[in-house]
Amino acid sequence: MPGHGNGTGDDAAPRLGVAVVGAGYWGPNLARNFAASGAWDLVALCDLDLDRASRLARSVGRVDVVGSVDDLLARDDVDAVAIATPARTHHGIVMSALRAGKHVVVEKPLAESGVQAREMVDLAQEQGLVLMTDHTYCYTPAVQRIRELVHDGVLGDILYIDSVRINLGIVQPDVDVLWDLAPHDLSILDFILPGGLRPVGVAAHGADPLGAGKACMAYLTLPLPDGAIAHVHVNWMSPTKIRQMVVGGSERTLVWDDLNPQQRLSVYDRGVDLARRGGDERAAATVSYRLGDTWSPALPEREALAAMVDEFAASIRERRAARTDGHAGARVLGILEAGSTSLLQAGTLVKMQQSDDKVGMVA
Amino acid sequence: MPGHGNGTGDDAAPRLGVAVVGAGYWGPNLARNFAASGAWDLVALCDLDLDRASRLARSVGRVDVVGSVDDLLARDDVDAVAIATPARTHHGIVMSALRAGKHVVVEKPLAESGVQAREMVDLAQEQGLVLMTDHTYCYTPAVQRIRELVHDGVLGDILYIDSVRINLGIVQPDVDVLWDLAPHDLSILDFILPGGLRPVGVAAHGADPLGAGKACMAYLTLPLPDGAIAHVHVNWMSPTKIRQMVVGGSERTLVWDDLNPQQRLSVYDRGVDLARRGGDERAAATVSYRLGDTWSPALPEREALAAMVDEFAASIRERRAARTDGHAGARVLGILEAGSTSLLQAGTLVKMQQSDDKVGMVA
Amino acid sequence: MPGHGNGTGDDAAPRLGVAVVGAGYWGPNLARNFAASGAWDLVALCDLDLDRASRLARSVGRVDVVGSVDDLLARDDVDAVAIATPARTHHGIVMSALRAGKHVVVEKPLAESGVQAREMVDLAQEQGLVLMTDHTYCYTPAVQRIRELVHDGVLGDILYIDSVRINLGIVQPDVDVLWDLAPHDLSILDFILPGGLRPVGVAAHGADPLGAGKACMAYLTLPLPDGAIAHVHVNWMSPTKIRQMVVGGSERTLVWDDLNPQQRLSVYDRGVDLARRGGDERAAATVSYRLGDTWSPALPEREALAAMVDEFAASIRERRAARTDGHAGARVLGILEAGSTSLLQAGTLVKMQQSDDKVGMVA
Amino acid sequence: MPGHGNGTGDDAAPRLGVAVVGAGYWGPNLARNFAASGAWDLVALCDLDLDRASRLARSVGRVDVVGSVDDLLARDDVDAVAIATPARTHHGIVMSALRAGKHVVVEKPLAESGVQAREMVDLAQEQGLVLMTDHTYCYTPAVQRIRELVHDGVLGDILYIDSVRINLGIVQPDVDVLWDLAPHDLSILDFILPGGLRPVGVAAHGADPLGAGKACMAYLTLPLPDGAIAHVHVNWMSPTKIRQMVVGGSERTLVWDDLNPQQRLSVYDRGVDLARRGGDERAAATVSYRLGDTWSPALPEREALAAMVDEFAASIRERRAARTDGHAGARVLGILEAGSTSLLQAGTLVKMQQSDDKVGMVA
Repeated sequence: MPGHGNGTGDDAAPRLGVAVVGAGYWGPNLARNFAASGAWDLVALCDLDLDRASRLARSVGRVDVVGSVDDLLARDDVDAVAIATPARTHHGIVMSALRAGKHVVVEKPLAESGVQAREMVDLAQEQGLVLMTDHTYCYTPAVQRIRELVHDGVLGDILYIDSVRINLGIVQPDVDVLWDLAPHDLSILDFILPGGLRPVGVAAHGADPLGAGKACMAYLTLPLPDGAIAHVHVNWMSPTKIRQMVVGGSERTLVWDDLNPQQRLSVYDRGVDLARRGGDERAAATVSYRLGDTWSPALPEREALAAMVDEFAASIRERRAARTDGHAGARVLGILEAGSTSLLQAGTLVKMQQSDDKVGMVA
Repeated sequence: MPGHGNGTGDDAAPRLGVAVVGAGYWGPNLARNFAASGAWDLVALCDLDLDRASRLARSVGRVDVVGSVDDLLARDDVDAVAIATPARTHHGIVMSALRAGKHVVVEKPLAESGVQAREMVDLAQEQGLVLMTDHTYCYTPAVQRIRELVHDGVLGDILYIDSVRINLGIVQPDVDVLWDLAPHDLSILDFILPGGLRPVGVAAHGADPLGAGKACMAYLTLPLPDGAIAHVHVNWMSPTKIRQMVVGGSERTLVWDDLNPQQRLSVYDRGVDLARRGGDERAAATVSYRLGDTWSPALPEREALAAMVDEFAASIRERRAARTDGHAGARVLGILEAGSTSLLQAGTLVKMQQSDDKVGMVA
Repeated sequence: MPGHGNGTGDDAAPRLGVAVVGAGYWGPNLARNFAASGAWDLVALCDLDLDRASRLARSVGRVDVVGSVDDLLARDDVDAVAIATPARTHHGIVMSALRAGKHVVVEKPLAESGVQAREMVDLAQEQGLVLMTDHTYCYTPAVQRIRELVHDGVLGDILYIDSVRINLGIVQPDVDVLWDLAPHDLSILDFILPGGLRPVGVAAHGADPLGAGKACMAYLTLPLPDGAIAHVHVNWMSPTKIRQMVVGGSERTLVWDDLNPQQRLSVYDRGVDLARRGGDERAAATVSYRLGDTWSPALPEREALAAMVDEFAASIRERRAARTDGHAGARVLGILEAGSTSLLQAGTLVKMQQSDDKVGMVA
Repeated sequence: MPGHGNGTGDDAAPRLGVAVVGAGYWGPNLARNFAASGAWDLVALCDLDLDRASRLARSVGRVDVVGSVDDLLARDDVDAVAIATPARTHHGIVMSALRAGKHVVVEKPLAESGVQAREMVDLAQEQGLVLMTDHTYCYTPAVQRIRELVHDGVLGDILYIDSVRINLGIVQPDVDVLWDLAPHDLSILDFILPGGLRPVGVAAHGADPLGAGKACMAYLTLPLPDGAIAHVHVNWMSPTKIRQMVVGGSERTLVWDDLNPQQRLSVYDRGVDLARRGGDERAAATVSYRLGDTWSPALPEREALAAMVDEFAASIRERRAARTDGHAGARVLGILEAGSTSLLQAGTLVKMQQSDDKVGMVA
C-alpha cells in the first residue's frame, strides 16, 4: 500500500517514500525535485560511487546512501524508485524493482529496445504498479498547454504536425542525430495527441555529409491515421538554433516557438476551409479562407521536473497510468527503431502495427 | 544571324527582335521588360484574343499585334520568341518556333513532361538555337548572389540544403502543392549548384488532410552525390508565411530569409569540423566547432525579369547556353515527375539517372 | 445642400460632386479613390498645368479639366473640393472654397501655420461646412482598430504612448525631420486619444550631427493631462527601419509594429497594478503584476484613402465634423510649431493652451 | 607594494590579497570570482552578520571571516577590498579603506552623491591607490567589443546613441526608474565613448501615470560636444522587454540587441553622406546613401565579473587607472543627479561642467 509512513488517517495524504538510483548527470535534478515536493519523502540515494552519492545526499538534506540496488529494493520505506542510470542498465534495474513491488519512473530512453520496453510494461501491468517514463519536456508549461488545447478541441482535428529541432550540436559519440534529438519531438507528439502517437508507418531520410560515421541530420515522416502527417527535422549542423513545432488543426493552428520567451505559443484562427457541394457526383469543392485573430496564452513559470514528480505521485495514489507511462516510452522507442530501419533502407516506409498496447514495426 | 536590324557594324550591338506569345497573366510582365531593355526590340505580341493583345500593345508602345503563331514565326524581324501561354501548349509552340529558327524563352514549366522537355532540348541543340526556361526567381539579386557565393567556394562543399516555402495558399484546381510551389525551390537549387541539381533519387511524402483530392503539403527529399542532401517543405495550410532556404557548406552556411528585407542573406562562419586522426585503423574523429562572425551582404535593387531578359540576349549573342537553359527546365520537370511517382508509392525513393544531358527516372 | 444631382428622394443617397485641385504627387491618389467611390461623382480636376491634369483625367474616366480655381469654385456640380497643392497655397485656396460654399478636404499639412489653420477652422464653422484634414494614416485598418480599442476602454486609461519612426531617410531640402516625420505620429495620436491630442506642453530635443543645417533626428516629449506622457522619436539616420508605437493603458497595453504584416497589432494583458492600502497616512502601495494572454486582432485589407473618402462623404451627409477635421489639423500644426520653438530653446518645455477649439502655445 | 605574499621574484606575478565586504546579494558573486581568479587570493570576508559571512566563506574555500571593517583594514595580507554593502555606507568604508592604503573596487553606485564620489576620487589620487567602480555591464563581451569598435574608429565619429531599456519591472521602493535602470546605460556610454561620457547638459522627462510617487518611465537626453546626442529611454511599465542600443557613427552604425543571443551585435555599413560643394557661399549639400553589408562579430563566452576582477588586478599592477575608475563612477552619479534636477524642472536642460576630472552640474 502506498505511504510507508504513519497511516494516521490525516486529511493530508501521507508522503510516499522514494529513492533515486544514479547520482550522475540527471539524478541530482530528480533528487532535488523529490526533496522539494510535498508528496514525497526522499529516503535514499543509490550509486555504486558512494562518494558521489554522499555529496548529493548532503546537498538535499538527510538522506540515506546505499551502494547496492538489492539493498535498496529490500527497504520497506521505499515505495518507488527513480532510475537515472545509463540506458543499458534500465531493463535490469526496472525489472528487479517491479518484482520487488516498487513503482518506477525511468529517465528516457525507457530501455535499449522496444522488446525490452514491452517486457517492462507487461511486468508492471501484472504487478499492478506504475511504470512511468520521465519525458521531462512534456511537463513544461508550454507542452502542458498544447495538450490541453488539443484535447479540448480548440484546434479541431489535427491535420499535420511539423517539428524542427536544429542547432549547432555536438556530434555524439554513441548515437546518431535521430536518437539524440528526435526523442524529444516524439515524446511530445505522443503526449499531445489523444491516444498517443500511433503512426501507420515511419520513413526516415538522413545524411552524413561530414563523414562522421552516423546521420548528422535527419527527416522523419510519420503518416498518421485519417490522412494526417507528422514530420520531424533534426540537425546537428545548423548555424541557427530553431525549436519550433506547428500543430495544424481543422479549426485553428498552433505554433510553438520555444526560443521566444515573449510569445512561446501562438494560436492562429486561420486556415483553409473546404466546403463540399452536396449531390454532385464529383463533389466539387469550394475553398475559402479564414484570417482571424491570433492569440498567445500566458504560461505559468514552473519547473518541468516538479510537475513530473507530482504526476508520478498522483498516478500512484489514484491507481492509474501516469501521463507519460511505460507505453508512451515503448511507443517512442518503437518509432525510433523503425526510423533506424528506414534510414538503412533509403527511406522506405516501415509499416507500424497498431494494436492497443503494442506499438512496433510489422514483423 | 542575331540582329534583324541594321547590320551597320556599329560598336553597340544591334538590338534583337523579340515577340511575346500570350498576353494573359505573365505575358505583360515579359512585354514590359523586353520593351524597357536596351538589348531588345519588342516587335510583336501574339494572342488568339486580339483585343487583349491590343490593349497590351498600347501600354508598351508601338508593337504589332498578331493573331497567329504561324504568321509570327514567318516574320524576319523576329529573332526570338518569349512564350507565356498555358503549359499544355508549350511543347507545340516551342517545337514550331525552333523549327522556324527562332531562339525561345518559355515560362515555366518548360513543358508538361520530361519527355516533351527533352525533345525540345534536343531540337534546340540540333538547330543551334538558345532554348531558355524563364526560372524568374533565379534572376533575383538574392539568388544571383547565392550562386556566386556557392560557385566562388565561399561556402565550401555543399553539405545540405533545406528549403521551406509555406503559407496559407490557394488550393489550386489543377495541380497539387508539389507542382505549385516546389518548382521555385527546384529551379533555384538547379541554378545555384555547380553542374545543376542532379539528385541520385527523389522521395516525396505528402498529405491531403483536408480531403482536397490532392496533396496540400509535401516533403521532398533529394539525396545528392557525395552524401549531401536537399529537402524541400511546401505547404498550403500554414498560418504563417515562411520563405527560407539554408545552404549548409563545409566552410560556411548561408541562410536566405526572403521575407526579411532588412537582412535577406546571412552567411554564418559557423560549423562543425571533423578532424581525423591519421594512421589509426578506426579513424577516430575529433569534433570541433567554429563560432565565427556572421555577414550579410548588401543586395542591389533590380527587377528579376530585367536580368532574365538580359541573360537571354547575352546567351544568344555569345552563342552559349543560357544560365537557366532547356536542360535546367527538363531537370526540374524530371524531378517533379519522380516526386509524383514517389508520392504514389508511399515515399519510396525513385532513383534518377545521371547522364549528362538527360535527367529522369531510371526506367 | 449636399447632392448636386437628382434630388429624387431615392433610398440611395445621391452622389456628391467633388473636384480635385492639384494633379501632382498626391492628387492622382485622391482622384482615383473619389472615382472609385459609390458616394462621390468626381466631376472635375483642376491644375495650372492643363496637360498634367488631362493625363490624370483620362486615367480616371470622364472628368472635366479646369485651369482656374475660380472657375472651378463657380460650378454648381461641385459640392466639395479636395486640395492637393503645395502647402503654402492651402490657406488661400481653402478660404476661397469655403467662401464659395464648398466642403473641403486638404492634404496635410492643413496650412503653413497654426494661425492660418485656425482662421480656416473658424470660417468653416461660420459657413457650416465640413473642413477635413487628410491625415491618411488614420484611415489605415490598424489605426482605425487602435482608435476603437482605446475608445471602447479595452486599454483602460492611457498612461503613456511611445512612438518610434526611424529609418535611413532622405534629408529633405525644405523641412527638418520633425516636420517631415512627426506629423504622422501626431495625427495618429490626435486620432486615437479621446478628445484629441492636447498636451500641457511640448519639449523637443534634436541633433544635426551631419551638419545638414537642420535637425536630422529629434525626440518630442508631450506631457499629457492626468500625468500621462507621449514621446515621439524620429530619425533620418537609422540603419534599421522601425515603425512602432506602444500605447500603454491601465488595463492593457497595445504594441503596433507596422512593419510586421503577420502581427501588426498585439494587445498585452500585462501590467503593473498599484493597490493602495487605505487608512494609512503614508499610503503605502503594494505593487502586483499581471502576466496575461496576448491577443492579435485580425485586420481587414482596405486602402486607407478609400476609407478617408467615405468619411468625408459621411461627415457632409450627417452634418457633423469629420473624424480628422480642421481642428485636428490645427492641433497637429500647433504642436509642431511648439516643437520647433522648443528645439531653438534647448528643449525647454513650451506650455500649450487648452481651450476647446484653440490649441497653441501660450502667448 | 602589491603582492602580500612571497616576494620571490618568480616570473609569475605574486597574487594580490583581497577581501570582500558585504555578504548579501552581490558579495557572493564577487567572492566567487575573486576565488576563481589566478590573480587574486581571497583572504577574508567581512559582514556584520557573521553567520551569513561564514556560510559564504564555506562555499568559496578557506577564507577568514571578519566582523569589523577596522579589523579587516588593519590586516597586512589585504591589498585590496571589494565593497558590496548598501550604497549609503560606500563613502565611509571607501574613505577608511583608502586611508588604510587599500585599493578599492565598489559596487555601483559609487556613492550617494557626486560630491561624495569626488571626495573619494580625490583621496584615491592623493594616496596613489586604485579606486574602481564595478560597472559590471561594461565587462560583458558585447560591451567590450563595442568599446573596441568605437575606439578603433570602425564606426567613425559618433553621431548619436539611442538606448532603450524597458520591461515590466518592479516599482522599486527607494529609487525611481531613472536611478534604477539608467545607471546601466550611462556607465556603458561612459565606457565606450573615448574620454568618457561628458554631456554639455542633461534633460530628463518622466512620468508617474500609476501614481507610484516616483517616475516609472523616463527619457534622458544628453547633448554631447560636437553636435552629437545621446538619449536613454527607461521604463518599468512596458509589456515587452527591450534592451537595445544604437550607436550611430559617421562611417558605420552599430545595433546592440542584448536579447538576441544569435546576433547580439550588428554593424551596418549604411548611412547618409553629406558631400559639400566647396567654394559656394551657401555651401549647398548633396546627400547620398550607403547601403553596404551588415556584419555581426562573434563574441566569446565569458562571465563579466571575471573580466572585471582581472581588470582590477591589472590596473593595480600596472599602476594605472582602471577602465571603470572612480571618475567614471562620479561622472555617472553627476549625470543622474542632473537628471533628477531636470525632472523636477519640467525637463529643462541642466548644464554640465566639463573640467577634466570633475563632472557635475554647473553651480
